[in-house]
Amino acid sequence: MNIKEYLNEMKTLVDNALDRYIPSKNTYPPDIYNSMRYSLFAGGKRLRPILVIASAETVGGKREDVLPFACAIEMIHTYTLIHDDLPAIDNDDFRRGKPANHKEFGEAVAILAGDALLTMAFQMMSEVRLMPGINPAAILRAMNEIARAVGASGTIGGQVVDIQYSGKKPDIPTLEYIHTHKTGEMILSAVRAGAILSDCEDDELNALTKYGENIGLAFQVVDDILDVEGESEVMGKTTGSDERMKKITYPSVFGLAESKKIAGRLIDNSIKSLEMFGEKGEILKDISEYIIARRF
Amino acid sequence: MNIKEYLNEMKTLVDNALDRYIPSKNTYPPDIYNSMRYSLFAGGKRLRPILVIASAETVGGKREDVLPFACAIEMIHTYTLIHDDLPAIDNDDFRRGKPANHKEFGEAVAILAGDALLTMAFQMMSEVRLMPGINPAAILRAMNEIARAVGASGTIGGQVVDIQYSGKKPDIPTLEYIHTHKTGEMILSAVRAGAILSDCEDDELNALTKYGENIGLAFQVVDDILDVEGESEVMGKTTGSDERMKKITYPSVFGLAESKKIAGRLIDNSIKSLEMFGEKGEILKDISEYIIARRF
Repeated sequence: MNIKEYLNEMKTLVDNALDRYIPSKNTYPPDIYNSMRYSLFAGGKRLRPILVIASAETVGGKREDVLPFACAIEMIHTYTLIHDDLPAIDNDDFRRGKPANHKEFGEAVAILAGDALLTMAFQMMSEVRLMPGINPAAILRAMNEIARAVGASGTIGGQVVDIQYSGKKPDIPTLEYIHTHKTGEMILSAVRAGAILSDCEDDELNALTKYGENIGLAFQVVDDILDVEGESEVMGKTTGSDERMKKITYPSVFGLAESKKIAGRLIDNSIKSLEMFGEKGEILKDISEYIIARRF
Repeated sequence: MNIKEYLNEMKTLVDNALDRYIPSKNTYPPDIYNSMRYSLFAGGKRLRPILVIASAETVGGKREDVLPFACAIEMIHTYTLIHDDLPAIDNDDFRRGKPANHKEFGEAVAILAGDALLTMAFQMMSEVRLMPGINPAAILRAMNEIARAVGASGTIGGQVVDIQYSGKKPDIPTLEYIHTHKTGEMILSAVRAGAILSDCEDDELNALTKYGENIGLAFQVVDDILDVEGESEVMGKTTGSDERMKKITYPSVFGLAESKKIAGRLIDNSIKSLEMFGEKGEILKDISEYIIARRF
């Protein structure tokens, strides 16, 4: 199976599961579910859930077994987007070419829908009946890592520093802190969770950790580059928003050409860390190449 | 030990644990931790964590074993207060006699501190090293119930309906929905989690479920009554805020006298449901009496 087919198949698997987990009918109060679904089905490419699945399969795990975690991490990603777009934070009116959640449902419901997606993520991850093949201790370990990765010392910490440094003179340690925390930690935790749930060996987890660290940062550097040179249609949001918001980015610190070199090196390193998996590492390698080719 | 001593001792236990879990020093970025701690240590009486502990002890569990869950539920309660006070939601400038979180730290940090407390709660609940005496399957079951109780079909659902019905003609089913969901479910889940973590029998869980349902609703009815007749100092917030916000409350639907009768009946029922525990049910009985005496 080629990578395009694999990604399509996994996206469908994830989309269908999300649709089951957050139903569209007979829910009360309807607005909160509509708001959650609005952002969850707004055209995300499902990179993070696909990484959970691909990482699991790389170490011999089963996609069905890790599906609740795959969906949970997409719910967490989606909640961060909803809250980031709020007027008090990044004040973005559009996301993926559609009105931001708070423009569609109002700020109160948008804040609560974000809260509800975050909560639902942990509900899914603790729903043992959906994961009969997985050891409860592994479930707890993977969940604990995800909670750490997306909390005050991870994603949220990165977002706070990003806000506080907007408009200030960028320095490299702060730039790295923001990127590894705001984006990198969640991607890394997706990769690690898939492997932990699949009862992998320690050396496999170490290799996948290096993989996850490299693609996590690469993904954000590529995103920064796209914000400068991408087409508005491809991005689904206004390009140049980082400059307008005076955000610290790789291009603003290193320039475009050097940023592209950095992204390339990170991707190369991610691929190198897959060596021990041989052919089984092909899918993750292809995902690395998709990231640098700006397809995620 | 009398109830006052017990409550003081448990409050100290919880406060010290919260202080360890969310440190005040050497954290980065400092603002997010300061904001989380600001609301977490703003004078809460710790009803929910004490219920986790008291419920565990009623069925033979140990307070130290359930402490991470006790703290987690206080973090969740605190996040709901921070988000509820935001300008886009209830727009309250004061909470427990102090400026609301967003008045002290700004809206962006307040939103993110709420998110971080919610996330930290699930980090604590999945931190198995802190709960060596508890079976991982019981941890997952208790966590799953809490996630359900505080999510879109629980606390958040109640808050959405509360917002949407503000200023509308109140009807009894909507009033009951809001109160049982916005407040009741979380209190019930605290009681149930303590018992589940302590490996209780089914009949014990059934009895404690009745207890939790009754005190959960009673607590909110008493809160409504206090909003009408309480003293501003005791409440730590402006009284009459429900009327100003045109919120649906028990006094607005049933009148004050009838609301007091309802609260009394709920408390009586909660105490009745403790019969099977004999002397071991004394602490929970005393907590019921504290609620109706308006001390929580």
